[in-house]
Amino acid sequence: MNRLFFLMVLVGVPISVAGSLLNWSQILMFIIYCVTIIALSAFMGRATESLAIHAGPRIGGLLNATFGNAVELIISIFALKAGMLGVVLASLTGSIIGNLLLVAGLSFLVGGIRFKRPEFNVYDARHNSGLLIFSVVVAFIFPEVFSIQLSERETLTLSIWIAIIMIVLYIAALIFKLVTHRGVYQHRSDKAAHDEEAEWSKLKAILVLFAATLAVAYVSERLVSTFETVGHTFGWTELFIGVIIVAIVGNAAEHASAVIMAFKNKMNVAVEIAIGSSIQVAMFVAPVLVLISLLFSKPMPLIFTLPELVAMVLSVILTIAVSIDGETNWFEGLTMLAAYLIMGVGFYFL
Amino acid sequence: MNRLFFLMVLVGVPISVAGSLLNWSQILMFIIYCVTIIALSAFMGRATESLAIHAGPRIGGLLNATFGNAVELIISIFALKAGMLGVVLASLTGSIIGNLLLVAGLSFLVGGIRFKRPEFNVYDARHNSGLLIFSVVVAFIFPEVFSIQLSERETLTLSIWIAIIMIVLYIAALIFKLVTHRGVYQHRSDKAAHDEEAEWSKLKAILVLFAATLAVAYVSERLVSTFETVGHTFGWTELFIGVIIVAIVGNAAEHASAVIMAFKNKMNVAVEIAIGSSIQVAMFVAPVLVLISLLFSKPMPLIFTLPELVAMVLSVILTIAVSIDGETNWFEGLTMLAAYLIMGVGFYFL
Amino acid sequence: MNRLFFLMVLVGVPISVAGSLLNWSQILMFIIYCVTIIALSAFMGRATESLAIHAGPRIGGLLNATFGNAVELIISIFALKAGMLGVVLASLTGSIIGNLLLVAGLSFLVGGIRFKRPEFNVYDARHNSGLLIFSVVVAFIFPEVFSIQLSERETLTLSIWIAIIMIVLYIAALIFKLVTHRGVYQHRSDKAAHDEEAEWSKLKAILVLFAATLAVAYVSERLVSTFETVGHTFGWTELFIGVIIVAIVGNAAEHASAVIMAFKNKMNVAVEIAIGSSIQVAMFVAPVLVLISLLFSKPMPLIFTLPELVAMVLSVILTIAVSIDGETNWFEGLTMLAAYLIMGVGFYFL
Repeated sequence: MNRLFFLMVLVGVPISVAGSLLNWSQILMFIIYCVTIIALSAFMGRATESLAIHAGPRIGGLLNATFGNAVELIISIFALKAGMLGVVLASLTGSIIGNLLLVAGLSFLVGGIRFKRPEFNVYDARHNSGLLIFSVVVAFIFPEVFSIQLSERETLTLSIWIAIIMIVLYIAALIFKLVTHRGVYQHRSDKAAHDEEAEWSKLKAILVLFAATLAVAYVSERLVSTFETVGHTFGWTELFIGVIIVAIVGNAAEHASAVIMAFKNKMNVAVEIAIGSSIQVAMFVAPVLVLISLLFSKPMPLIFTLPELVAMVLSVILTIAVSIDGETNWFEGLTMLAAYLIMGVGFYFL
Repeated sequence: MNRLFFLMVLVGVPISVAGSLLNWSQILMFIIYCVTIIALSAFMGRATESLAIHAGPRIGGLLNATFGNAVELIISIFALKAGMLGVVLASLTGSIIGNLLLVAGLSFLVGGIRFKRPEFNVYDARHNSGLLIFSVVVAFIFPEVFSIQLSERETLTLSIWIAIIMIVLYIAALIFKLVTHRGVYQHRSDKAAHDEEAEWSKLKAILVLFAATLAVAYVSERLVSTFETVGHTFGWTELFIGVIIVAIVGNAAEHASAVIMAFKNKMNVAVEIAIGSSIQVAMFVAPVLVLISLLFSKPMPLIFTLPELVAMVLSVILTIAVSIDGETNWFEGLTMLAAYLIMGVGFYFL
Repeated sequence: MNRLFFLMVLVGVPISVAGSLLNWSQILMFIIYCVTIIALSAFMGRATESLAIHAGPRIGGLLNATFGNAVELIISIFALKAGMLGVVLASLTGSIIGNLLLVAGLSFLVGGIRFKRPEFNVYDARHNSGLLIFSVVVAFIFPEVFSIQLSERETLTLSIWIAIIMIVLYIAALIFKLVTHRGVYQHRSDKAAHDEEAEWSKLKAILVLFAATLAVAYVSERLVSTFETVGHTFGWTELFIGVIIVAIVGNAAEHASAVIMAFKNKMNVAVEIAIGSSIQVAMFVAPVLVLISLLFSKPMPLIFTLPELVAMVLSVILTIAVSIDGETNWFEGLTMLAAYLIMGVGFYFL
């Protein structure tokens, strides 16, 4: 797996540069960019992991939390710069429903087929439910309902307020998890982490992370520039590109590792990747993008379309109903995948 | 009770035939048809139960699941054939809120007055919550929200997709419950079933089931043809006839047995009848009706009216909040009945 | 604290009378009225507590339940009389979200900083969840959705029906808690109450309660008459005055005691005050106000504005997600405060 990704990077990056300079077909380049980003994000994941082990659990947790969705953040920033607000909001939606239903669902299905009733930390599950409800249900529904009666300017101001409150609470959540209540709710995954050895040395990890991030930034900018042509050619809307393409490309490496963890009966880690990543997108990536958008010509209020909002809220409710008891089975995984399929079909027709 | 039903069938079926041939008053016939169907469905229930015991728990569970809502399915098919889509959707709604709030509520009230804190299987309760949220909250809300922006044709295609996904998941739920995870979550009701003896021989049960189904089909067709006159005479809308009349007639026999079980402190069985039946209606009867409707001139998309959808979703949420801890009391039953009463008053005024 | 309140009453009441007779500035009087009501309601609270201890747990519970929101009820009646329906509905909203998010949130934060994982009665938490869902989610959403298709007259009739059903269920809830299931779910707070001694004699408590209620009634009427001027001067809408001012003034004394209890690790009592008070407002104060409004020229249907309804429903969902496991921590408190802040900003911009 790692070798394949290495090859993909070795071939993908030069071709990406060459192709964009030589004006190759946009459709072809779109595919090359996607594949290259997936391979690069696998490297970023491994580098972050190594660094986290060197840094110890606290700073390591912080690193994981910050760099976990770096690829998506980078792609979104270039989409913001290009004024494609619809793509950004759609990719946030796709990332949240994809992590919750597709990744967690597949993990539950795979883990549940191998083991009858895989368990995971019930305290984490409850802690995460509260965060999902705060971020997706409260902080996303609220501006939506109020914006009906507000002017565009007031809606943006309200969005900025909410974004700041969310980031502050996200930082508080990190303090809670890594400082004041670390180990209080028996984090088995933390304990496991103590035994692990870093794959790369500190220096190598920093260099890889730095180089891969630069490369991702370059390729992401090129990728965003192909969206218009790709949309026209395949008849895809901004919404579909965001919810499906960007969400899958931005999270592919993460997705793979969650399912592998579930297969190894490390359901705790799988759940942490899937649900933790959704929370990060909702509570950190989304509000940060709102604030960053103020630097560009088109500021982005935190107003999703109704289908996006409903898809996210329903995903949260189904995930909580399934995961709140701290154990799962193959059927619960299948239920989540069925819900994802229904949403996918819906967004395709939209 | 059984004798009374026997008499009702003995008298009701011939009178139904005679009355429909001799063109008696539609209002009178409407009442006779309703009473006859209730009596016949009691026989179908007993025949299914006997067959299920003969067939063993797996095939038996399948039989119960398939024939449990046969009467409602038959009435709905004739309503579909007559183009009364509004009645069909309303009767699905009435069936779901009636089973959840009226039947479960009455069972909790009756059981809770006799016994201080009647308990039931908490694993089943959680499993059922997931299914209710998937079917009612995800699969019913989704097409509703998307249909706002879709054409009629696209809405129907989306409905067909969702219907197929739901039926596949329903079959998976049966495999989960009857094959891969049977007994894993201590189904006390299953264990109890082993001790029971079948009331009727296999042959007798099959014959009764066959004859009763035929009779129900005949009377149902006649019943549907009286709806227009009945509606005009009493000033009832399609909605009210569906939510109240069809739902009560189609489920009366089942309702009675749930409450009797609760009275005997077999709360597990009562909950299984009430909540299990709602899940069946939502995940099996509703999507099957969507597919069957394609054979008739007016296809039926899975789009409920807003009050119907809200009533179902609120019923699901209240039921889950009340039942998720695996025990109940008279006050929780009363709360559910109060919610049913509020909805009943609402639909009456609509 | 008690001395301060005594001084405030001693000075506030005469000044209130003098100021209203001498036509002092409305803005000044608005502030004096608010402060006086807060001080008076502290006295009412102490008198009720003393009476409750004299009367024994059953009648005492009833007294607490009835007089707990007396101040708010009185202010609202005068607002109804003045035809300010918007203020009344907004103050109900403010009272519910304030009790749930601000009071419970602050209690969890304060208790959670002092003690790592403060616990409270999990049975009460579940019982309360059911009531919150019944009252806020079912009984408030329902008339809202149905009123879209109903005439004004029908909406009012539906509201009256729902109000009566809610009051009946509220009385049943008191019977459940104080009679049939008292002590069944180990009410630690009840047990603690047995040890407490009344602060005042029975006679003194009755006299104080009587005098304070009279004084509150007088000052409340004056307070309502200042709303128009205050709104004009500060540019506040009826909505903002109701959600923020009336809600805080009407509940301030209660708020303080909940937080003090949390600080003393009596989290059970704090939760009972915060969540119990919301339930009382939703299930008793709101429907009683609907019925009382029929005596005045402008009857009040139970129809909130969409932002109000959404704010209440989201508060209930977040509170249940956080409190359902019977334990808490500082971060959960902070999450609730963050949600309150978001709502506060939203209502300010509206």
